[in-house]
Amino acid sequence: MDYTSFQEKLKTRWEDGYIISVGLDPVVSKIPDTLKREHSSVFDLIRVFDRAIIDATADVVCAFKPNSAFYEAEGIEGLKALKATVDYVHKVYPNIPVILDAKRGDIGSTSEAYARSVFDELGADAVTVQPYLGQTAIQPFLDRKDKGIFILARTSNEGAGEFQDMLVGNSNQPLYLHVANQVANTWNKNQNCGLVVGATVPDELKAVRDIVGDMPLLIPGVGVQGGDTARVIEVSALPHGGIILNSSRGVIYASPEANFAEAARSSLVALNNIASATRVKK
Amino acid sequence: MDYTSFQEKLKTRWEDGYIISVGLDPVVSKIPDTLKREHSSVFDLIRVFDRAIIDATADVVCAFKPNSAFYEAEGIEGLKALKATVDYVHKVYPNIPVILDAKRGDIGSTSEAYARSVFDELGADAVTVQPYLGQTAIQPFLDRKDKGIFILARTSNEGAGEFQDMLVGNSNQPLYLHVANQVANTWNKNQNCGLVVGATVPDELKAVRDIVGDMPLLIPGVGVQGGDTARVIEVSALPHGGIILNSSRGVIYASPEANFAEAARSSLVALNNIASATRVKK
Repeated sequence: MDYTSFQEKLKTRWEDGYIISVGLDPVVSKIPDTLKREHSSVFDLIRVFDRAIIDATADVVCAFKPNSAFYEAEGIEGLKALKATVDYVHKVYPNIPVILDAKRGDIGSTSEAYARSVFDELGADAVTVQPYLGQTAIQPFLDRKDKGIFILARTSNEGAGEFQDMLVGNSNQPLYLHVANQVANTWNKNQNCGLVVGATVPDELKAVRDIVGDMPLLIPGVGVQGGDTARVIEVSALPHGGIILNSSRGVIYASPEANFAEAARSSLVALNNIASATRVKK
Repeated sequence: MDYTSFQEKLKTRWEDGYIISVGLDPVVSKIPDTLKREHSSVFDLIRVFDRAIIDATADVVCAFKPNSAFYEAEGIEGLKALKATVDYVHKVYPNIPVILDAKRGDIGSTSEAYARSVFDELGADAVTVQPYLGQTAIQPFLDRKDKGIFILARTSNEGAGEFQDMLVGNSNQPLYLHVANQVANTWNKNQNCGLVVGATVPDELKAVRDIVGDMPLLIPGVGVQGGDTARVIEVSALPHGGIILNSSRGVIYASPEANFAEAARSSLVALNNIASATRVKK
């Protein structure tokens, strides 16, 4: 397998017109019965479910974003499935980036171990990380020039503002914008940083975009979490792409029946159509 | 195995006079050659190393704190070893709490999956979590009444102050103290919260203690990270205990030779002696 950096993979997907990523959040109770009748082990069940979603969407997706939590919740079997899923994407769709949504963050020596886990053991192209410990803690991630490091700025959950919206320092700027500022102006020496900004409040997304120039934004919360897709794209997308708009449950659980993979593709295509129409208009 | 809550286990260890925890940060390159000659698989090597440290220190320890990153860095083999280590403590030393240092944090539905992973799959008694997403995101952890939830307040790394020391809101209070305030006054309805506060700056530790009453503090950074143990205990310990002072590398890598387990015990006993002397004086 030729080695291609996250940045190159992402650029190519954007050039081909794709800005929507599919979040892989496998939950055994939600996986269609049709697969459960054929696969009894959790490892097989998740692996086969992921593979069906990937095969059905790979040609029209920007990236795949497996969320580590849902694999970890199934113990060793789940983690083996995660590895199998990442390996599968790299082998069969080597042009599609894999963003591991893991929200890791610890002091330097421990971050080094997490970076090894995510990039070397698992083989992800990019990862999400926590800002709270500051740049020095995250440096082992930032040192990986060919990988993408998406730092949480404004998350999409209710109650996200408890700390993120607090005005900090003398700037009268909320914490999430200060994080965006620091990442854009100080952390991004290797041009491998991005920010995670929820889709739920487009005005916040716009405020982040205004600060960070053309830095990639990973935007969860489209679909189930209720973001207005067109409005989100209007305020955050750039002519060359600039965003990875993620939908998880709205795509992968679009149907509980045997047609789940086709339904996933249809949901993704519908989002792609909104994206294309919005970007043409813009 | 009788089920005992984290709070009960911790209370008993404190009553017996133990406030020092041993951090399990297994790094293959640092594990003594004597074990490597006997065990060729990473799974066996880490499992046997952990077991030797645990057996040598269990009677004089407050808690064991495996750090998930170092197991994750070894892939599936490492994660199997983590599970074996947690199981071993529960089986052989059921009175010793296991705190998984994982620094997890995500939106609610994903935190629910992480809580399942940490508590139900792995069986940890307590976990460390990130504050950045706010209380609502961490609620699935907080709902676990019998578990311990240690929220990061002030970390021990150089550069931790980048965000944690920023003055927030109208209170002229640094972010880490505001986090401490929120946790003590709002998050702790189930009396299962604690805070992570680094040992490196005792004045910060004292400021947190002054805010949070008798909330348990998990204090990393003794030993290798350079905290002054006696001073740290003076400003943070309470008559009944109140703190879990963690040492990782200074204990588990006290010797690279065949006597590593005895050396680990000696290091821990030396810390216990400082703790006893300091608390008697106080």
